[in-house]
Amino acid sequence: MKVKEIMDTEFIAVNADMDIVEASIKMESHKKFATPVLDDKKRLIGWITSLDVTRGLRDNHKKVSEIMHSKDDIVKLHEDEPARLAVLAASKYKVVSIPVLDTEDRVVGVIRTFDIVETLSSLYEIKVYKIFEAMVRELKGVTWEELMEASAIVTKRETGKRVTAEEYEQRIKNSTFGEAIWATGGLEKFFVGLIAIGELVIARKVAKARK
Amino acid sequence: MKVKEIMDTEFIAVNADMDIVEASIKMESHKKFATPVLDDKKRLIGWITSLDVTRGLRDNHKKVSEIMHSKDDIVKLHEDEPARLAVLAASKYKVVSIPVLDTEDRVVGVIRTFDIVETLSSLYEIKVYKIFEAMVRELKGVTWEELMEASAIVTKRETGKRVTAEEYEQRIKNSTFGEAIWATGGLEKFFVGLIAIGELVIARKVAKARK
Repeated sequence: MKVKEIMDTEFIAVNADMDIVEASIKMESHKKFATPVLDDKKRLIGWITSLDVTRGLRDNHKKVSEIMHSKDDIVKLHEDEPARLAVLAASKYKVVSIPVLDTEDRVVGVIRTFDIVETLSSLYEIKVYKIFEAMVRELKGVTWEELMEASAIVTKRETGKRVTAEEYEQRIKNSTFGEAIWATGGLEKFFVGLIAIGELVIARKVAKARK
Repeated sequence: MKVKEIMDTEFIAVNADMDIVEASIKMESHKKFATPVLDDKKRLIGWITSLDVTRGLRDNHKKVSEIMHSKDDIVKLHEDEPARLAVLAASKYKVVSIPVLDTEDRVVGVIRTFDIVETLSSLYEIKVYKIFEAMVRELKGVTWEELMEASAIVTKRETGKRVTAEEYEQRIKNSTFGEAIWATGGLEKFFVGLIAIGELVIARKVAKARK
């Protein structure tokens, strides 16, 4: 996945000569906390946030150029970079949005931190039973029922709580990978549970094949 | 994981009688795009963003109370709610931050969207070999070398490219779960590869035990 696939292309922009009052109205009406400053060829020359604007209004500045950060001082991304870099940049620099450039330094989009949250959470929000379906597809010869039965046994072993295969099936139909990760306390623990289930069904499959 | 574990406790706050100019200086100096409005018992009564402040400064409003959103109109979280709800709220409401309340309606922290990105990305950024280490721990009797060998075989089978166990080991030492997910195109595909590896080592382990 590339940066351009998760960027917002409906971004707003201002230019360096624009009156601060006008820029503030534009940012408010589009609910943008930050916006790129472009030249007449749509190339990035700077960046302003609504906090630069409050300071500018208070100190009686007139033009955007008087309050903007230079493009050399801000974090930016290229449209063809891996989307993962946007995640790392947002987390490292603690910004609300990041301008995205093409090869000519033109701004083609803006990555917003909440868009990253949405992308990350959608990667996480796949249903847990999808992973079990993949397991059944991969482990030829193991049935869905055998997998649910093994899962119920492993759950009992690990949590001490008795659960039927049917209850386990309901549980994974309703929960997402994201919930499972938060609930088990991390990826590694989640995997350990899956591996234990895999070990049980595979051992049974091998035993059956040898009969 | 609970909301209180990922919230920022070094948040700032303003009160309804505060002068807008004073509030704007406080927000700028702490680099906050939004802040809760509290009563004298630290209970939430409203919320202002830097966009409310630019409008307030322009329209010559005097006090925070004139520009704030009522607490009933904003998204908020309880400190003991699952952290996952913060992810869903940030993604759904597209906000930069969310106030966190205790049982008395007092603000005890603020969830910032980039903190969520950081938490999500740290969940993702665990090294892939950690998952394999968990596998070795769980599958008693399988050695690390056997696991790397099985991984090399599965990789050859699935990609057609020959890779040695040592090369595979280097690869998982350098890459993270996040990279693997973005690279393989999603969780399910990643799991299918892991399951295939698991099947191979478990089948060999069972065969060994029966000798």
